[in-house]
Amino acid sequence: MSESALLTDLYELTMLQAYHDEGMNDSAVFELFVRALPPQRRFLMLAGIEQVLDYLENLRFTTAELDWLRATGRFRPAFLDALRDFRFTGEVHAMREGTVFFGDEPVLRIEAPIGEAQFVESRLINLVNYCSLVATKAARCVLAAPRSLLVDFGLRRAHAGEAGLLAARASFLAGFAGSATVLAGQRFGVPVFGTMAHSYIEAHELETDAFEQFSLSQPGNVTLLIDTYDTEAAAAKVVALAPSLQARGVNLVSVRLDSGDLADHARRVRAILDAGGLANVRIFASGNLDEYRIAALLAAGAPIDGFGVGTQLTTSADAPALDSAYKLQVYAGRARRKRSEGKATWPGAKQVWRSVDVEGRLTRDLVALADEPAPVGAWVPLLRPVMHAGKRLVPPEPLTALRTHAATELARLPAALRELDPGVGSDIYPVSISDGLQALALQLDRSTH
Amino acid sequence: MSESALLTDLYELTMLQAYHDEGMNDSAVFELFVRALPPQRRFLMLAGIEQVLDYLENLRFTTAELDWLRATGRFRPAFLDALRDFRFTGEVHAMREGTVFFGDEPVLRIEAPIGEAQFVESRLINLVNYCSLVATKAARCVLAAPRSLLVDFGLRRAHAGEAGLLAARASFLAGFAGSATVLAGQRFGVPVFGTMAHSYIEAHELETDAFEQFSLSQPGNVTLLIDTYDTEAAAAKVVALAPSLQARGVNLVSVRLDSGDLADHARRVRAILDAGGLANVRIFASGNLDEYRIAALLAAGAPIDGFGVGTQLTTSADAPALDSAYKLQVYAGRARRKRSEGKATWPGAKQVWRSVDVEGRLTRDLVALADEPAPVGAWVPLLRPVMHAGKRLVPPEPLTALRTHAATELARLPAALRELDPGVGSDIYPVSISDGLQALALQLDRSTH
Repeated sequence: MSESALLTDLYELTMLQAYHDEGMNDSAVFELFVRALPPQRRFLMLAGIEQVLDYLENLRFTTAELDWLRATGRFRPAFLDALRDFRFTGEVHAMREGTVFFGDEPVLRIEAPIGEAQFVESRLINLVNYCSLVATKAARCVLAAPRSLLVDFGLRRAHAGEAGLLAARASFLAGFAGSATVLAGQRFGVPVFGTMAHSYIEAHELETDAFEQFSLSQPGNVTLLIDTYDTEAAAAKVVALAPSLQARGVNLVSVRLDSGDLADHARRVRAILDAGGLANVRIFASGNLDEYRIAALLAAGAPIDGFGVGTQLTTSADAPALDSAYKLQVYAGRARRKRSEGKATWPGAKQVWRSVDVEGRLTRDLVALADEPAPVGAWVPLLRPVMHAGKRLVPPEPLTALRTHAATELARLPAALRELDPGVGSDIYPVSISDGLQALALQLDRSTH
Repeated sequence: MSESALLTDLYELTMLQAYHDEGMNDSAVFELFVRALPPQRRFLMLAGIEQVLDYLENLRFTTAELDWLRATGRFRPAFLDALRDFRFTGEVHAMREGTVFFGDEPVLRIEAPIGEAQFVESRLINLVNYCSLVATKAARCVLAAPRSLLVDFGLRRAHAGEAGLLAARASFLAGFAGSATVLAGQRFGVPVFGTMAHSYIEAHELETDAFEQFSLSQPGNVTLLIDTYDTEAAAAKVVALAPSLQARGVNLVSVRLDSGDLADHARRVRAILDAGGLANVRIFASGNLDEYRIAALLAAGAPIDGFGVGTQLTTSADAPALDSAYKLQVYAGRARRKRSEGKATWPGAKQVWRSVDVEGRLTRDLVALADEPAPVGAWVPLLRPVMHAGKRLVPPEPLTALRTHAATELARLPAALRELDPGVGSDIYPVSISDGLQALALQLDRSTH
């Protein structure tokens, strides 16, 4: 599904045909950026670049797809013949996944013959927008609970299958311990976690039998769900069962709470487990959690060691979309600028520079033209070449390396950006536009079309 | 991707292994339902059932998947051997796609050996939850603009690729005219629509050249985007260009507005087009639209003939998740009930009955046990058998037939449910629980576990 070249908007194909007809094949620069942060976010974390590079490297039309396009009657034979050899042959610059970014900062810059650079728009936004939404939401959970075990439980409420899969990757990258989604283990090496469902308990006549049988079936790493009927009564059953389980080699790791007042239940269950000699059994909680509820539980001193975060993570429910765009900045060597009301863009091929203080904390960013000289001082360029002539320059980075980078990024966030409360990122973190870029924009505004 | 048996939660596999170890293979009934409507919704519209049936018919583990599971070390050889022949062999009842439904009403009922019925949980919720979210959001847009051309523009901001694809199907089913997503045309026969991007205009030195070249490239059905620089100036260029285009066989269908005050621009552009002899050229608008903004534009008398609805549709942004659940209701012939605080379920295999008035309008629903006698009066059962022994009972219905059904459902909505404003569905529309079901729940609450 995700690999089909037809997973695009019709206008990408009709524009491609028009460019083909017109013989317009000069090089274009497009950039992908987010216009402004949602008010619920103080920073964004980039993810999805590996998926973008996979897409670009493998983009082609199959015979079946070309046949279907022909049958629609919308396209001329000469164009369809040309589509048979259509490949992405361009250059790509990107920020590294896990990097923190802000409004108006290009995270991806594509340079290719205009038809190619245009065509990939829909899928590139589709991937980067969603993966970055989830990485950002996950990063906020990590900031709320830096010492807790955080696990993605959100496949079922993610918006269809690919979202569930990519959310597992993005949240692990951002600092989660892993995901319940098995396919993310196979595809990306994300550590996979799981417990049991209420139905398993209910299918047994006695709750304690369910606990025992489940434990014996996977003795290496057992988490028991204890809220199906009466949470504290179930905790007492776990205590009663534990010696016989341990004698049979069961490693009872944790119990899971999924309903009711989680802080209150956690305290009562902790006391029951501790009194029963199970001080080493941890408490794991789930049930419509997000960074706000996790922070509140921890602030209230709830003895909870880990959290399963589901719907709120994989739908980024309080900010389910970014104002992401992919815009033409240069064509045939000349900078271009969209001037639509409220949607004007900064023209030209750009670089994003970041300045950090002596302790490594982010202090400010500068968006400049790519061919402007480097700003004076300790600035680091964030856009790096990652693809040449349609091929990756280096193999994909291990996900664990990107995860380490994301952790470093979070550690370098200034205090104001670490707050969970709504705040407009651009008000909190300074992103400047270079003199060269401002001059170019003014110059283009004086032109007529 | 969507077809992988590993697109599931780990606990589905660990529970399956436990059931295998225990020899628990009796028949179970699970039901999929939404606990309560989001406050932003007065009804829900069902979609995704065809995808569910596809999944159930084709579910199997590949050798590569089994090898990977073996390599994790979590599963025993005898279980993995059994997984090789794992198939879904059960019975399925479902409401018809396009049907309006409410909280606590099962939309899907699965009866199969417990391992099979349990295993499919994650993907079934994943599909029905998202497709129904989008069908519902689209239905609300249709209620807001029943005579407008509505097109799904939301692939790029959908949560990854499968969401974009399924959103196109669900919104067409609910009454949209079609989608910009090409793959939805190929896979589902959804009519595909498209215009042009700002970048296409910007790549040409003169806006009027872009209009001309684009029109000549696809003369059959042209929509020109006119807000790149100055909307009214562009409308005048369209007027100036029209005679020469028409002389060359171009069918100029519409112009598209994508920024600024859409109502104001639409009025000015309408006047320019009318004065220029282009009264038959329609105005199409896009730009962060949803049912509320569309209703406001039409209420203000904006002369807009069609709307592209993107992000708000494919993310269902004001209600990005449903409180959907898939729960065990019967095992080995005995009804089961989850009693977790705030999450208790109605036990037993159920049927949903609907009563309509003499004009065909929905009046009330009744949730009853499947084996209770039909209620007295003009009640219609909504759950119908669709799969037997793991095979569809009838071929998939044409999407256009489901779309007609959805339109009938919307026409039958009582006035209170047609309102767009937030309102709790269960307060507005009466859904009763049968005496038999209430008695069963009470009886189970007296049992101990």
